[in-house]
Amino acid sequence: MKRILILGSTGSIGINTLEVIKKFPDKFNIESLTVNSNIDLLEKQIYDFNPAKVVVKNVSKAKELKERVGNKCEVLSGEEGLIEITKDGNYEVLISALVGFAGLFPTIEAVKLGKRIALANKETLVVAGEIITDLVQKHNAEIIPVDSEHSAIFQCLVGEKVSEIRKLILTASGGPFFKLDEKEFKGVTITQALNHPNWDMGDKVTIDSATMMNKGLEVIEAHWLFNLPRKKIDVVVHPQSIIHSMVEFIDASIKAQLSTPDMKLPIQYALSYPERLESEFVETNFPQLEKLTFYEPDLTKFKCLKLAYDVLELGGTNPCILNAANEIAVDGFLKEKIKFNQIPDVISESLENIRNHTTLELGSIFECDESTRKFAQSFINKEY
Amino acid sequence: MKRILILGSTGSIGINTLEVIKKFPDKFNIESLTVNSNIDLLEKQIYDFNPAKVVVKNVSKAKELKERVGNKCEVLSGEEGLIEITKDGNYEVLISALVGFAGLFPTIEAVKLGKRIALANKETLVVAGEIITDLVQKHNAEIIPVDSEHSAIFQCLVGEKVSEIRKLILTASGGPFFKLDEKEFKGVTITQALNHPNWDMGDKVTIDSATMMNKGLEVIEAHWLFNLPRKKIDVVVHPQSIIHSMVEFIDASIKAQLSTPDMKLPIQYALSYPERLESEFVETNFPQLEKLTFYEPDLTKFKCLKLAYDVLELGGTNPCILNAANEIAVDGFLKEKIKFNQIPDVISESLENIRNHTTLELGSIFECDESTRKFAQSFINKEY
Repeated sequence: MKRILILGSTGSIGINTLEVIKKFPDKFNIESLTVNSNIDLLEKQIYDFNPAKVVVKNVSKAKELKERVGNKCEVLSGEEGLIEITKDGNYEVLISALVGFAGLFPTIEAVKLGKRIALANKETLVVAGEIITDLVQKHNAEIIPVDSEHSAIFQCLVGEKVSEIRKLILTASGGPFFKLDEKEFKGVTITQALNHPNWDMGDKVTIDSATMMNKGLEVIEAHWLFNLPRKKIDVVVHPQSIIHSMVEFIDASIKAQLSTPDMKLPIQYALSYPERLESEFVETNFPQLEKLTFYEPDLTKFKCLKLAYDVLELGGTNPCILNAANEIAVDGFLKEKIKFNQIPDVISESLENIRNHTTLELGSIFECDESTRKFAQSFINKEY
Repeated sequence: MKRILILGSTGSIGINTLEVIKKFPDKFNIESLTVNSNIDLLEKQIYDFNPAKVVVKNVSKAKELKERVGNKCEVLSGEEGLIEITKDGNYEVLISALVGFAGLFPTIEAVKLGKRIALANKETLVVAGEIITDLVQKHNAEIIPVDSEHSAIFQCLVGEKVSEIRKLILTASGGPFFKLDEKEFKGVTITQALNHPNWDMGDKVTIDSATMMNKGLEVIEAHWLFNLPRKKIDVVVHPQSIIHSMVEFIDASIKAQLSTPDMKLPIQYALSYPERLESEFVETNFPQLEKLTFYEPDLTKFKCLKLAYDVLELGGTNPCILNAANEIAVDGFLKEKIKFNQIPDVISESLENIRNHTTLELGSIFECDESTRKFAQSFINKEY
């Protein structure tokens, strides 16, 4: 019986994780759940899964929940609550499913305890990949990726040698604007950008998918997860999202992992690995698939992907700047402060103006993240 | 340094194996080669690879070669030569690449010595799967499949548990007549049938591919190699032959092995496993692929595939009857004695007329093979 702590239980990954756990009551149980502020759904989850502790980041919402649930479970609050709950170590698997930079610090606590991290928060590795991978090694922790692409690669590498990899081939759906002319980017509405063809995800990730920044962040994540240089990580657009990613080996043999898109599959694998568990996820009926197609990503059109490639080569806190500026830019787009085509501009501008730190420490990352956010926000307020 | 014995060095698999071996002179060397009668090519191979012994099955051709090569290497002949050379044990890997039933007995000798068998001769498992798998276990031998489909499955299963397989998905190119109306089958010429869209193989295998008997034999082979029942082995037509086969696991996750079609890749893998060796085989450029498509095989049209499914369920010597009758029928087609659409008729007729032995012994298999050949041949002579 594995005890599970979910950071971000009311988000898309959190909800899917709970659905998986519900199916295997003899294998997994919920030790703790954390949310930002959605206490209505959390209250329901408390009654369904009986966690010992929960954390509500929003302090006043935490108080409100405490009044509602009484002694049913312990209610903590704030960033301190998040750190406390990850530090207590009363769990075997941490589901790191907070969105954005917020996932970094609590994830580090779990790494320090040598836990298994089912990692859905890509920013953790994007901004602090070097620090995290060092800590994972030092504390004998285990990172199992939850992103469908990285899970695919992880699965393809089971029983294989990392030294025999020629390259990784990350597949990308291309998002809703894969075929849209770049000239139309400035007129893209929020509704259009949130309408992902294959995956049902949170708003931030869906917009990142539309700009292909999501794939850029995944390339950086893959670099750290699998210890491979940029030139050994290819991206290929595969609009059907059936092949989740591939590994080409030195003998030209390629292994791919495929399935009908369903986040529950990689989540379950991250929980059950090295076992696989019988499940009723939709089986893939090949004769019923229309076709599988592949295209080169257009780096002129999808500038965010190009920017991500660049910062990976540059290193230092550049990926942190990219990530922070992107979070602010996406937020600005969702609040209708900037246009869709201005997202990469905010990021480029930030990369040009924020000082890069070549030596990575958590302190410099934190500082860099803060100053980038401030800069990007004021740039948006001033320019647009 | 692994010493290699190739049964069938002048056939398609043999020639490709020698090309692989040539690239890795510090890893593999040729201990012995065997051929049916093509002594011209064998003579060249002797000078290129310096085998200690060769076998020419045709006795008078063996004498002729002996005169030509003198003391350069030992020349044996006949079925006895084949058995002697496999029995001497002076090799680490046997490449079993004889075509048809002829591969069975020498392969068994290598199994009894606990050797690695790189198995390209599918008939060995088709007619004697139960006997072979028992012997492999008893003598701690190792069968690494060379067929691209089974190699794909073998590669997908590295690091995975056989108990977690939901099903195998064997891909089939569909051959040259995948889209041809069944009514046209009787008019198919030898040239048309030998014109395989993706693979360059020997005549027998190419005709089997056109009738889809090849896929039927592969289903039976997969049954024995991976110890799975018929209902866990699907066939899907995939005309591009990029995905060589797939494994679906109990969690609905599917793993596939892909490459641009080149038999050297699975041959090299069977030699180098568990390592992979750097190679210059054509890399697969996904954006340049037009598309990958998948179709249900048409069992009404491809009667040979249906017959193979049936004999796998029936068991006993039925697969042996199917195989022997098919060899005679294909030979009859290549000699223009029967039409393309009559191949399955010869097999059905044989299955109805030859007695099945439920207990498998090498003796009964040998006898069954002989009587089926006689029956099928006389049936062809009488009816057509």
